[in-house]
Amino acid sequence: MSERTISHESLYSFVKQVLLKCDVPEDAAHYVADNLVLSNLRGIDSHGVGRVKRYVGGIKDGYIVPDARPKVIRENSVMANVDADNGVGQFAGVYGMDLAIDKARMQGIGLVTVSNSNHYGFAGYYAMRALEYDFIGISLTNSEPLVVPTFGEDAILGTNPISIATPGSRNRPWVMDLATSVVPRGKLEVYERLGERIPHGWATDETGRSTEDPSRVLNNVLHSYGGGILPLGGEGELHGGHKGYGLSMMVDVLTGVLSGSNFGPDVVFRRNGEVAHPRVGHFFMVLDPAFFTELDDFKRRMDDYVDLLHTCARAEGCPRIYVHGEKEFEIHDYREKNGIPLDGKTVESLQGFSEEFRVELKFMD
Amino acid sequence: MSERTISHESLYSFVKQVLLKCDVPEDAAHYVADNLVLSNLRGIDSHGVGRVKRYVGGIKDGYIVPDARPKVIRENSVMANVDADNGVGQFAGVYGMDLAIDKARMQGIGLVTVSNSNHYGFAGYYAMRALEYDFIGISLTNSEPLVVPTFGEDAILGTNPISIATPGSRNRPWVMDLATSVVPRGKLEVYERLGERIPHGWATDETGRSTEDPSRVLNNVLHSYGGGILPLGGEGELHGGHKGYGLSMMVDVLTGVLSGSNFGPDVVFRRNGEVAHPRVGHFFMVLDPAFFTELDDFKRRMDDYVDLLHTCARAEGCPRIYVHGEKEFEIHDYREKNGIPLDGKTVESLQGFSEEFRVELKFMD
Repeated sequence: MSERTISHESLYSFVKQVLLKCDVPEDAAHYVADNLVLSNLRGIDSHGVGRVKRYVGGIKDGYIVPDARPKVIRENSVMANVDADNGVGQFAGVYGMDLAIDKARMQGIGLVTVSNSNHYGFAGYYAMRALEYDFIGISLTNSEPLVVPTFGEDAILGTNPISIATPGSRNRPWVMDLATSVVPRGKLEVYERLGERIPHGWATDETGRSTEDPSRVLNNVLHSYGGGILPLGGEGELHGGHKGYGLSMMVDVLTGVLSGSNFGPDVVFRRNGEVAHPRVGHFFMVLDPAFFTELDDFKRRMDDYVDLLHTCARAEGCPRIYVHGEKEFEIHDYREKNGIPLDGKTVESLQGFSEEFRVELKFMD
Repeated sequence: MSERTISHESLYSFVKQVLLKCDVPEDAAHYVADNLVLSNLRGIDSHGVGRVKRYVGGIKDGYIVPDARPKVIRENSVMANVDADNGVGQFAGVYGMDLAIDKARMQGIGLVTVSNSNHYGFAGYYAMRALEYDFIGISLTNSEPLVVPTFGEDAILGTNPISIATPGSRNRPWVMDLATSVVPRGKLEVYERLGERIPHGWATDETGRSTEDPSRVLNNVLHSYGGGILPLGGEGELHGGHKGYGLSMMVDVLTGVLSGSNFGPDVVFRRNGEVAHPRVGHFFMVLDPAFFTELDDFKRRMDDYVDLLHTCARAEGCPRIYVHGEKEFEIHDYREKNGIPLDGKTVESLQGFSEEFRVELKFMD
C-alpha cells in the first residue's frame, strides 16, 4: 500500500465516525479524533491516526470502556484526583485538564491527577488547552513499559512524556512535548512502517546490546523477551542515561503512583498471557502567570526568550535554531492547506476500518 | 596541595565561621554550611565546599548581599512569589521551600517561586526537606549560562537542575537530582581540579566542536568565547539533545521567567565587563500524597517501585541497578563515619580562608 494524502477535515470525520461505530459517545469521539488528527497535522505522525487500530482493538478486547465517564474521587479548591474508570484516554485527559484550568481560573493554580485511564495521544494536546486562557499548561502521562533502566535489561519503564506550553504575544506559544526516552515508541513504529533501521544507541535487544532493528525491539518488548528503548542520555551513566531513567520514573511517580493507578511494568493490557487493564495515569497542572508577575510582562519575557534563541550564534553547518513547537506549527500550517500524508501501513489499517464499519474514507489524491 | 580528609562536623563549623566573618547572619550561615557539607557527605563534591570561594567572592563583589532577607511579594493560600533581594541562595531557598511546606500542610499543595536570588547549592537539599512531613518535594533553579541550545554555538542556557524527593517506608526515600545538561558545571570543575580530560560528547569548544578539555570549556564560557556544555541527549537531535535543551528551558521558564527574575544568558554576575546581579530564580513545589490516596498506600507503592528496580534483570556486565539517591545515601553513611575527602585545590582554597579570616581548619589526617 502506498502513501496517500488526506485533508484534516476528512481524516477527523473518518476517525470520529469509526469511534462512534465502536460505541464511543459523541464528545469522547470528538476528542480522540481531534487529538490524533492534530498530532498528524503537527507532523507527530507517531501519535497520529496510526493509533486508531490500537484504540479499536482496546475497545474490542475490553480494556478500553468506550462509554466510561470520569469521576472525581478527591477534590479541593486547587486539586483533584479523577478516576477515568478505564475509559477513553483522550476524554479522561480533557476532563482532567479542563478541571485544572477551571481551578486555575479561580485560584491561579490547578493540579489534577487521573487514574485508571488509557493512552491519551500526544501529551502537548492537553498542555496547549491552557493557552486559550494565557495560562501555563503541563501534561504528563505514564505509558506501556518499553524503556530499560540504566544497567537494566528488562523494559520496565514507560517512555513517559513531559509537555509544557506557555503563552506568547509576538511569538507563537512555546510548546515542549518530549518522551523521556531517547525516542518514543511511536518513532520506532514509524521506522518499522517505513522499513528503515534505527540509529545505534536508541534501543537494546534481548541480550542487552544496542540494536538497529526496530521490529526486533518492538517484538521483544511485546513478549517481554528483554531489552527495550534506552532512556534519554543513552546507555550507562557516562552521558546521563540515569537522568532519562530518573525523569521517566518522576513522571511515573506523579501520574501512576500518586493517582493510585498502575506504574512501571504493570501499564500493559496483557501480561503473562492474562488480560489486564493498563490503568494509565495522567498528571495535569495549570499555572496563571498573572499570579506571579504581570501577564504582559510574562508574555513579553517569553517572547524575548524565543527571540534570544533565534538570534543565538549557530554551530558550524547548522542553518537554524528551533524553539520547541516551532517545527510543529510550521508543519501544521502546511498540512492544513496541503493535506496530511499517510504512510502505506496507516492507509491500509484505515481502509480496513472503512470496510469493517462502512465509513467512507476520502483521500485528496 | 594533596588530598586531605575532614570530619563533617569540622567542615560545617569551618564553613559557617567563614560565612559569619563575611557578615552572613547566623541562620543563613547555617543553611549554607549545612547545604555544602551535606553535598560533600553525599558524594556530590561538585556542589560541596569547593563553592565557598565563589560565595565569599560574591559577597566581596557585592552581588551577594549577605544580610538580605526574603520578602513575600505575592501570596495566596497555596502559592507565593518571594523576592530574595539578592541575598544568600541557600537562605532564600530554605525560606521558599519551607513556605511551600507550610502551605502543603494546610492545603495539600504549596508552590513558591523565588526571584533575585543567588546560587543555592544542590537542588535536592530543598526537595528533601519535604520528606520530614511525608510530602513530595520538588526543587528547580536556573543557573549561569553554560549550555548550548541544539544547533547553537553560544552557551545561553543554564545547567538548570530538576530534583524530586518522595518518602518511602521499608526503603529509603527516592531522591532524584539532576542537571538538564549531559553533566553539571561542577563536574567539569572536578575534572579540571583533578587535571583530567572530559569524555567526548560532554561539551563543545569555541568552534562548536566537541572537546575533551574542561579548562577550555570553562574559560570559553567565562569569557563568552563560544561553546559550552551540551544539553542532556548530546549534540544535535539524533539522540534527543533538543530534549535536554527543552528541559533546561522549562526549568528556566518556571524559575526565572515566571518569578520575574533573570533567565537565559542574563544569569551571570559579570557581562561585557560590567558587574550585574545574577538574580537567580528558584521554584519549589510540595505535594501531600495523602490528598490523592492513602499515605501508607503511596509509601508502599514507592517501596514496591524501588524493589522492582532492584530486582530488574541486569544488562550484561552490570552488577547492580541503582535507584536515584541510593549511591548518595551510601556515601553519606560512609563519609559520616570516615570523614570527607577534599581534593588539593579545595584544601588550598579553604586554607586560604583559614588564614584570611583566622578560622581554624582541622583535618583528620
